[in-house]
Amino acid sequence: MNLREIGEFGFIEELKKIYQYNNFDIIKGIGDDCAVFINEKNTAVLLTTDMLVENVHFEISTLSPKELGFKSLSVNLSDIAAMGGIPKNVLVSLAIPEKIDYEFLKDFYYGMDELINEYNMNLIGGDTNFSRSDLIINIVMTGEVEKDEVIYRNGAKINDKIFVTGYLGDSSLGLDVCLRKLKLDKYNENYFRNVHIKPKAQIKEGSVIAKSKLANSMIDISDGLASDLMHICCQSGVGAVIFENQIPYSEFMKNVFNQKNINPLDYALYGGEDFCLLFTVSPENKKKLCEIFQSHVNTNLFEIGEVIQGNRIELVDKSGDRKVLSKSGYRHF
Amino acid sequence: MNLREIGEFGFIEELKKIYQYNNFDIIKGIGDDCAVFINEKNTAVLLTTDMLVENVHFEISTLSPKELGFKSLSVNLSDIAAMGGIPKNVLVSLAIPEKIDYEFLKDFYYGMDELINEYNMNLIGGDTNFSRSDLIINIVMTGEVEKDEVIYRNGAKINDKIFVTGYLGDSSLGLDVCLRKLKLDKYNENYFRNVHIKPKAQIKEGSVIAKSKLANSMIDISDGLASDLMHICCQSGVGAVIFENQIPYSEFMKNVFNQKNINPLDYALYGGEDFCLLFTVSPENKKKLCEIFQSHVNTNLFEIGEVIQGNRIELVDKSGDRKVLSKSGYRHF
Repeated sequence: MNLREIGEFGFIEELKKIYQYNNFDIIKGIGDDCAVFINEKNTAVLLTTDMLVENVHFEISTLSPKELGFKSLSVNLSDIAAMGGIPKNVLVSLAIPEKIDYEFLKDFYYGMDELINEYNMNLIGGDTNFSRSDLIINIVMTGEVEKDEVIYRNGAKINDKIFVTGYLGDSSLGLDVCLRKLKLDKYNENYFRNVHIKPKAQIKEGSVIAKSKLANSMIDISDGLASDLMHICCQSGVGAVIFENQIPYSEFMKNVFNQKNINPLDYALYGGEDFCLLFTVSPENKKKLCEIFQSHVNTNLFEIGEVIQGNRIELVDKSGDRKVLSKSGYRHF
Repeated sequence: MNLREIGEFGFIEELKKIYQYNNFDIIKGIGDDCAVFINEKNTAVLLTTDMLVENVHFEISTLSPKELGFKSLSVNLSDIAAMGGIPKNVLVSLAIPEKIDYEFLKDFYYGMDELINEYNMNLIGGDTNFSRSDLIINIVMTGEVEKDEVIYRNGAKINDKIFVTGYLGDSSLGLDVCLRKLKLDKYNENYFRNVHIKPKAQIKEGSVIAKSKLANSMIDISDGLASDLMHICCQSGVGAVIFENQIPYSEFMKNVFNQKNINPLDYALYGGEDFCLLFTVSPENKKKLCEIFQSHVNTNLFEIGEVIQGNRIELVDKSGDRKVLSKSGYRHF
């Protein structure tokens, strides 16, 4: 069978079938943003790993070594945020091709340092190797969260309201700018490039939502709204409806799609790397959660839809018509 | 600066200088086989990661997918063994090129499964990605050991006796067989190939040594005796002397170097991937540790030298002459 046919997520489903868990202290294995163990203090230990491959996830010509270091950590921080956790430790493994020199590596580590210091994390290990062609970066991150505060993907309930914690689509439009597929004025290019290159994981936002104990499910938007919402739906055994006119766009995005002939919906649904959080909350708890969130975090919450029966995601477009969304966000195979 | 000039271990030393640790519960960060945290039960949690890069660490033509899966886990198991730990959890990240199909991946996971089941481990996560050219495998493994039983690289003391837990050189001679640099009869080829392709991490051996609380320092031999002993020396602030005629060789190795014009010493010192353990123990505790070891483990211990003052490794050759060993084992840059 070809890997493209089964797909990344099909492959993960196969793995979940094969691997049953031997230890009572593992409460989440394959299939969420992080694996979760329990330690003796009833704290959940989160463990996540992400691999970044040159010319697949990044191109060296489009970002500086420092930016690459920063982004590599952000991707993992976002997985910790998606479980409501606080990041703790980092291991960095690299496969380094000939073209990469010591200065590049130092700057790469300085880029990570900015976030390691911000979150009071520890770089505690890794592995350095030679590579024939591409630079490969593999980050392992641990985090912590109280056991009864962890938020999983599989807890969404019918009638839950669906929220996102930030604007959608800016990062993937920024990718088009970096790849010179889209030409904008300098001011707008800088904005979108920066959103794409220097994403900020929503650690505080995730932690506030977790501590409220009011959200039923959560994920970070890394592959695009359509794909990541589908993860929540599949794992929770539900469907969802989202309303096009409630999808939040930045002022920059609104300006650009007025000027250019582009559809922001495609960027939001299928673009990915927004690294904001998508969560669901019951109608009864919605108001309370929004109040708690706004009293702690200086960013907005956007209600974009609700959880329904079924196994698919429907989009209500601007004219009120309903259509079924295709599942595909960013696909690795 | 060129990475070759500073070298992998020079680079790790630089990282150790930059990164100080923020959390009281980290007792070992960069620079040992695993990072070590402490959980509330006073159990040390071990965390290690290893990256295997196609055409650097392995060639797909020389081993089956199942063998590749087995070996990928063994490399990490050996790091857990080197701290005296018991393996617990595994995360597997892959960057997969076009040429790899689903059958290959399934067999790769079956190869890992053999060890996952043997040690009652859990596969709890990972990350799957596309790669343009080489297959990249990154394994993360956690383990556990009682806090007062962990053995580090930095505890060697002057006059300690130096031991290894297995024959040296077979694996790197096996690599030459796999790469067709060395032609032997079928029987010998099979033996050496198998040692190289299907290495057995010494989890039980490491655990018995740890539980005895008698060893002062330990490491696994992954880069060659010279390089790995130098890690212990550097981190402990000591030197070492080893005796050529005490280096243990398998009967297969003895046969081959009688037949062929090869020097087994080069394989032992600079070959690597033997994945047996190298430890040091005080002269007073030596006998007791050997007794404990032999009563629990069905393999041999070999005394090969002793810890001395200084910062270099000396070799006493068969004629009794002393020479200073070059540091180099396998180097990644």
